[in-house]
Amino acid sequence: MFYHVKELQFNARVSEPDPKFAALLLEQFGGANGELAAAMRYFTQAFSTRKPYPDKYDMLMDIATEEFSHLEIVGATVTMLLDGLNGELKNAAEASPLGKLTSRNGKDELMHEALTNPLFLIQSGGGPTLTNSQGVPFSGSYIDANGDLTVDLRSDMAAEARAKITYEYLMKFTSDPLVHDSLRFLMTREIAHFQMFGAALDTIKPNFPMGILQGDPRHTHTYFNLSNGADARGPWNEGQGPWSAGESWEYINEPHRHVIDTQGEINHQPETVNITQEEVEEKDKELSRQRSEEVKMKTSAAPTQWSSYPQESVESPMEADTTRT
Amino acid sequence: MFYHVKELQFNARVSEPDPKFAALLLEQFGGANGELAAAMRYFTQAFSTRKPYPDKYDMLMDIATEEFSHLEIVGATVTMLLDGLNGELKNAAEASPLGKLTSRNGKDELMHEALTNPLFLIQSGGGPTLTNSQGVPFSGSYIDANGDLTVDLRSDMAAEARAKITYEYLMKFTSDPLVHDSLRFLMTREIAHFQMFGAALDTIKPNFPMGILQGDPRHTHTYFNLSNGADARGPWNEGQGPWSAGESWEYINEPHRHVIDTQGEINHQPETVNITQEEVEEKDKELSRQRSEEVKMKTSAAPTQWSSYPQESVESPMEADTTRT
Amino acid sequence: MFYHVKELQFNARVSEPDPKFAALLLEQFGGANGELAAAMRYFTQAFSTRKPYPDKYDMLMDIATEEFSHLEIVGATVTMLLDGLNGELKNAAEASPLGKLTSRNGKDELMHEALTNPLFLIQSGGGPTLTNSQGVPFSGSYIDANGDLTVDLRSDMAAEARAKITYEYLMKFTSDPLVHDSLRFLMTREIAHFQMFGAALDTIKPNFPMGILQGDPRHTHTYFNLSNGADARGPWNEGQGPWSAGESWEYINEPHRHVIDTQGEINHQPETVNITQEEVEEKDKELSRQRSEEVKMKTSAAPTQWSSYPQESVESPMEADTTRT
Amino acid sequence: MFYHVKELQFNARVSEPDPKFAALLLEQFGGANGELAAAMRYFTQAFSTRKPYPDKYDMLMDIATEEFSHLEIVGATVTMLLDGLNGELKNAAEASPLGKLTSRNGKDELMHEALTNPLFLIQSGGGPTLTNSQGVPFSGSYIDANGDLTVDLRSDMAAEARAKITYEYLMKFTSDPLVHDSLRFLMTREIAHFQMFGAALDTIKPNFPMGILQGDPRHTHTYFNLSNGADARGPWNEGQGPWSAGESWEYINEPHRHVIDTQGEINHQPETVNITQEEVEEKDKELSRQRSEEVKMKTSAAPTQWSSYPQESVESPMEADTTRT
Amino acid sequence: MFYHVKELQFNARVSEPDPKFAALLLEQFGGANGELAAAMRYFTQAFSTRKPYPDKYDMLMDIATEEFSHLEIVGATVTMLLDGLNGELKNAAEASPLGKLTSRNGKDELMHEALTNPLFLIQSGGGPTLTNSQGVPFSGSYIDANGDLTVDLRSDMAAEARAKITYEYLMKFTSDPLVHDSLRFLMTREIAHFQMFGAALDTIKPNFPMGILQGDPRHTHTYFNLSNGADARGPWNEGQGPWSAGESWEYINEPHRHVIDTQGEINHQPETVNITQEEVEEKDKELSRQRSEEVKMKTSAAPTQWSSYPQESVESPMEADTTRT
Amino acid sequence: MFYHVKELQFNARVSEPDPKFAALLLEQFGGANGELAAAMRYFTQAFSTRKPYPDKYDMLMDIATEEFSHLEIVGATVTMLLDGLNGELKNAAEASPLGKLTSRNGKDELMHEALTNPLFLIQSGGGPTLTNSQGVPFSGSYIDANGDLTVDLRSDMAAEARAKITYEYLMKFTSDPLVHDSLRFLMTREIAHFQMFGAALDTIKPNFPMGILQGDPRHTHTYFNLSNGADARGPWNEGQGPWSAGESWEYINEPHRHVIDTQGEINHQPETVNITQEEVEEKDKELSRQRSEEVKMKTSAAPTQWSSYPQESVESPMEADTTRT
Repeated sequence: MFYHVKELQFNARVSEPDPKFAALLLEQFGGANGELAAAMRYFTQAFSTRKPYPDKYDMLMDIATEEFSHLEIVGATVTMLLDGLNGELKNAAEASPLGKLTSRNGKDELMHEALTNPLFLIQSGGGPTLTNSQGVPFSGSYIDANGDLTVDLRSDMAAEARAKITYEYLMKFTSDPLVHDSLRFLMTREIAHFQMFGAALDTIKPNFPMGILQGDPRHTHTYFNLSNGADARGPWNEGQGPWSAGESWEYINEPHRHVIDTQGEINHQPETVNITQEEVEEKDKELSRQRSEEVKMKTSAAPTQWSSYPQESVESPMEADTTRT
Repeated sequence: MFYHVKELQFNARVSEPDPKFAALLLEQFGGANGELAAAMRYFTQAFSTRKPYPDKYDMLMDIATEEFSHLEIVGATVTMLLDGLNGELKNAAEASPLGKLTSRNGKDELMHEALTNPLFLIQSGGGPTLTNSQGVPFSGSYIDANGDLTVDLRSDMAAEARAKITYEYLMKFTSDPLVHDSLRFLMTREIAHFQMFGAALDTIKPNFPMGILQGDPRHTHTYFNLSNGADARGPWNEGQGPWSAGESWEYINEPHRHVIDTQGEINHQPETVNITQEEVEEKDKELSRQRSEEVKMKTSAAPTQWSSYPQESVESPMEADTTRT
Repeated sequence: MFYHVKELQFNARVSEPDPKFAALLLEQFGGANGELAAAMRYFTQAFSTRKPYPDKYDMLMDIATEEFSHLEIVGATVTMLLDGLNGELKNAAEASPLGKLTSRNGKDELMHEALTNPLFLIQSGGGPTLTNSQGVPFSGSYIDANGDLTVDLRSDMAAEARAKITYEYLMKFTSDPLVHDSLRFLMTREIAHFQMFGAALDTIKPNFPMGILQGDPRHTHTYFNLSNGADARGPWNEGQGPWSAGESWEYINEPHRHVIDTQGEINHQPETVNITQEEVEEKDKELSRQRSEEVKMKTSAAPTQWSSYPQESVESPMEADTTRT
Repeated sequence: MFYHVKELQFNARVSEPDPKFAALLLEQFGGANGELAAAMRYFTQAFSTRKPYPDKYDMLMDIATEEFSHLEIVGATVTMLLDGLNGELKNAAEASPLGKLTSRNGKDELMHEALTNPLFLIQSGGGPTLTNSQGVPFSGSYIDANGDLTVDLRSDMAAEARAKITYEYLMKFTSDPLVHDSLRFLMTREIAHFQMFGAALDTIKPNFPMGILQGDPRHTHTYFNLSNGADARGPWNEGQGPWSAGESWEYINEPHRHVIDTQGEINHQPETVNITQEEVEEKDKELSRQRSEEVKMKTSAAPTQWSSYPQESVESPMEADTTRT
Repeated sequence: MFYHVKELQFNARVSEPDPKFAALLLEQFGGANGELAAAMRYFTQAFSTRKPYPDKYDMLMDIATEEFSHLEIVGATVTMLLDGLNGELKNAAEASPLGKLTSRNGKDELMHEALTNPLFLIQSGGGPTLTNSQGVPFSGSYIDANGDLTVDLRSDMAAEARAKITYEYLMKFTSDPLVHDSLRFLMTREIAHFQMFGAALDTIKPNFPMGILQGDPRHTHTYFNLSNGADARGPWNEGQGPWSAGESWEYINEPHRHVIDTQGEINHQPETVNITQEEVEEKDKELSRQRSEEVKMKTSAAPTQWSSYPQESVESPMEADTTRT
Repeated sequence: MFYHVKELQFNARVSEPDPKFAALLLEQFGGANGELAAAMRYFTQAFSTRKPYPDKYDMLMDIATEEFSHLEIVGATVTMLLDGLNGELKNAAEASPLGKLTSRNGKDELMHEALTNPLFLIQSGGGPTLTNSQGVPFSGSYIDANGDLTVDLRSDMAAEARAKITYEYLMKFTSDPLVHDSLRFLMTREIAHFQMFGAALDTIKPNFPMGILQGDPRHTHTYFNLSNGADARGPWNEGQGPWSAGESWEYINEPHRHVIDTQGEINHQPETVNITQEEVEEKDKELSRQRSEEVKMKTSAAPTQWSSYPQESVESPMEADTTRT
């Protein structure tokens, strides 16, 4: 269950209205890397961790709830940046129409600027809209939740990176020190969350490859030089790179010839990999057994109940399982 | 700022997994009339009421927060209805593939049913997805927030009506008494919210017409019979209907002739309306003055601050305005 | 079947081109609360009322057809506001390109203003686009049609409220008296439709709660104080409010404690409600029987035929049912 | 202005309910190549032809109106195919829930089939939805309207081709002779419209290249062999093909070498083209002058009025221009 | 398999940055008629032609690959038009913020212009975005692929027409001769592709009606005069028009009366058509047999393999079919 | 410029048609984590790296081109899994319609299975559609390209993780060993790409925090316990965690009290952080200077040219800059 308190997590303030920046700031209200996307990403991921991994569930819900609180800060700031607009629109019978607005002299500058986002004027009446900075509605397709923590936590780290750079860019477009303060807080929290997710990922062993299955050793270490001319080499396509000792990248300089020679990779014999297909299958089985048991152990009983009342410890959902109707 | 407690607002339980119903239930997770749409509708509307109408702000935030709590109930129920799926998918190296699934004998019934929503299998790995029951992603375009309480509260009442009927329909498709219990709770709360919004709308006087401007008396009372054949008459197009004493509907039986006769309504003289154009303009000015003042009075000072710390009364946002940095 | 006549329902005119306002006006062409959304909402709802409720079918089709006619007025106005643009674009070989357009002096003002909506320039070539004012394509998700008139008519009233306020806002952004005239007509018709839908809803008894099922008496009258600080009380959460005599709201001041005390509402005993669970079930059954019979009585025969030729009275669809091939 | 008559353009009938086919048929209600897309395509295109090309305007509006009438036939058929569903859902209090529906024996077959489109069950309550056959909402992005008849009429012909094949495919999935009859009518009308658009395009001279500008002779006749292996030759890349006498395709067998040799086409000298750059520019200027004059001649006066009352001839919109307020 | 070479197909250059035009040009990067839409249209269509029609497969893949190469040219040009923006954004700690940007004097003109597309500033950091010119994300719904070459090739011709006019319009908005050069190349290639698709369509006999089935002779030749007033006649609704000798259009001047007289077209007797229903059925069967055999002959064997290694001739996919594992 | 060769990168084969699995596999054709999303992600990111970071440009284009090649493998496999469907649809005149398909006996099983994705039947005619597994069209919003390699490479690693798990899940739903082979290849390549991106990220120093700006030391190390009950502690919220020696997490156990005490974080004094605000500003300036110079140095000259012909080394784009027209 959620609670709300009227105080914001950060004391958001603005020096004066600025509808143009309000429009840019919508990117963090309803945009792909905005606060609602963040909140819903962690909230949605949390459900399948609830029982098997209650510690990660706690972390995801802590951060999701913080992101909802950030969404509120962004919405509050957008609203303050539009201060005056709603009141002006209420003055519907006023004689002097604001129509053409092509010359700025003697016109309401505030209204003029709001034209950069017409939805402020004719849809939301001076409040935020659940869109990005160009008016594209928020989409559920922004949410990554794939039911596997070694994947989801990586998605989360990348999402925090994108949210951080977005705040960094936004700070270039306002000179209001009060708004800067809020943006700096929000940007910094993305860094903090990035660190939390990274630390959590490190507690899962193994976490590479993500998911359960190992890669097929015939295909893991090859690099295809598919963009010809001005080729570059580096640890991403030569030498040991990120691989184990004794392993290295295999650089396919002429992919078309390679494909024909190997009959479409079917006959490709890897030479720079140490692991065998048998070892791969062994690892696959072992991790399959371990991870599926971890999950099933906690979720198999029925009927099931989500919460126990009250719950003080991370063990409580399991107690709940023993409750029968 | 939001808080979360691990206990659900309602003690959601399920008797046994039912992936097919889980897919239907997604309609209330990420669908047009679902709980996230409700939560975000009230939350987004609340921003522009924060200062001028703190009592309505309190109500909108109370209900928005409850809808987030309902979203959690729905997500928890979907997850419990999919119990076992995530664990089974983790068993990635298992020898017997679940592939064709065309005959059900000797196959995993659970997986088969999950095929009604393939995203459960290959995207979310057994958790909810931010989509409706057919996999269409949640959209910010579901959110109505128009910066005017006489409009927004009507949108809210209609939205609650749609959410209520959706739960009513859903209850036809599960026989699980525990799930029924949760759905009945959620359905009932939509009725309760409908009543809250209605009561709040009644405290705003006048609230019709919605917004500020009166209708043009030439056009308010006409009914155009544009669908010919099998015509019907009723209080929506004959007699006094919803109008003031002495007024009535004017039924235009032959719209094409009427349009030509009135030169496209320009020369239409209304006969069943009591109010004059002058009275309309008077009313428009009066309400414009009143409502724009109500709003501007509370929002005009700058710099502005959203919250005061702590805030105990509905007056606190105004105090906040006097805080300077 | 639809017919079209070349005359507009309202004699739409413009004083001079104004591409900037044309862009705003698109909100009513392809926007969420625009005329196509309105037309398709009523048109789509009408299908399932065709046989059981031919009087409401007639009304929905009358209004849907009027909304299509309004869509035409809006499109015509957008086109006239862009007058000259299409002709200018046809002058494709002209030597002096209109490119950078950063300084306005000595440049074509018309083109410059059209840049506020680039689709006018490079997609539609000077005509309307099926988008909202920010270029977001019209979406079928704007349409509410839930197969129950006590729900649909409420959706329709709310939609008319939103359309009305949109026209009200739009009128602030043009000073062209001819355009004002058209907008005032269109705005006023939304008020008229609102009244029609309201009057029709009143002819359905009972119409609350919407749909068939009564609320669970344990949950109808509670108000959860989930947003703490600056709390407000009013008829939406205290006293009798909208309830029957002898009933009142139950204000849950500390929801978390309440949830734990009631084990997630399971043990909640309502004290401010007069109806019992048994009475609820009785009402549910009675209304289920009545409404399902109303519908089934008119729709059960097969083969079915949609129209009878010709049809003069509201009874004609039933005659049609008796026609066999 | 639009009119509606209760009779359908075609006497749509169904032999018995078939929810599964109803779901498929939605493709023509709210799908990319469906009837609403067709109606809105021609309707939207018509606006910019209204004044300069009143004959094409008449044709576009004739066909647009017919497509709205087809949309009604499709919606009526979907509704009849779902007959019984709405009535069953109204029976909300019925004791025997329809829940799991996994075994079909002793279950309501109708409901079971409706599960192929869950929106029928829990959103539309047994009526059509403004989506395609997989529940994706109709989108304004389906509409092509580019402000040039030599382009728009080609878009229209292609759209009719797609709509025709969709009906052809649909007919494979129903054995109901009455439904077949309706589909055959609708399919045939797409052929008829295709012929109308083609005949109209032929009255515009020249109509190739579409738009105004000729192609650059350096680049019109080259064919790049960019997909190597299993190459094929035909009139699309060898010989005269569709070109004027004495001209032919130039087949670039080794595009990479060609690009380097010509410094990225900058130095490419066409050898198989007869027209010179000077002739191209001459043609460009001539057609620019002619077409922009055609358009401007009819649209330049202001204030402008859309309709004259009444209008009997194709000349009426021009008369209207002379009307002043 | 695809290859890439670093050289562009056309030597794209720009004279100076122009973010405003960069925003317009995005229409051809991620817009409905842009290069990605073109590339994916032909690429997606190609799959089902691979085996039965290897010559058309070759052509579709040649052109698809060229469109990917054009997408690269457009993206490169957008990037060069934004030159400097990314570097400026990297200067994140710079003291003088670029915030309000309302007056242009003494401000960075580059940044100011980029505000016409805020995603350049706060999302893409100075590179292209996969959107159209108004920020609407690219959509898979732009792709027409209907599994029948007589339909797909017509879709392709229309798509090329739309792409051509879009480039023609775009050229009006830049005066940079280097950019003009690139746009003229790209525009011209759309004309070339149009000719290729047309020539390929001509090699398929018959190709009208598109698909397999003939039209129902009762409905092919009628024209419904559904838009009354200012009627126009021409080869699209009178005389022989596009029909065979001895056939002609049948103009239904009063459609409502016609519909009633024919009982919804059921009793309509065509008088201007020469073909009989029997002949239609004969043609349908003959073409069904022929086309389905063409396709099945090449695709029926299993297991199947996509490629043979290497493949030199258009026959190779069939050889591949005989390969067994 | 792109090239295509007819051979697939991997020799994709299928044992027998399986339309149900074809529908699932679409997730990798047009889904959020599918091959087109991957290809377009790297391709779009590559543009702004072209000049300042030609080595990363080469890597991004190598991998983007490989992803296009994978898209082809997926599309080929979907097509082979649907083998027979297109041919059957061409048999349009066949007497025995496939309509109701409710009982499977004596019906075409292939067609029946295809009903799980109706677009195969009535839109694509047996080929792939640019949608995900539930028919939702591909969206440009799947693409992350933020103009900063420390962000983009993290997005890429996460995207590869999601693509890998999707293939892992998909492999559970087919028992065809030939299809398994292709999926294993594709899955493995995601692992390989993940390693490439990781290795490339490691060559950028510093790469944390992503972007330029350091976090505000007041807010980097705090963890808010916003989800109460069943709290968990770990390296993500206690101890040193991922921070430098001497630093640690600060756990805010009672966030509401903390917010009030610190006046909305304004007065929060961090105690577990070693870096000062001054040091932060120093670092910000230093990195701003360095990174903006890196970018500007390579991009500031005008006019600019994208390619030099031919280009053999990573330096070539810079040479190109010196080319003048």
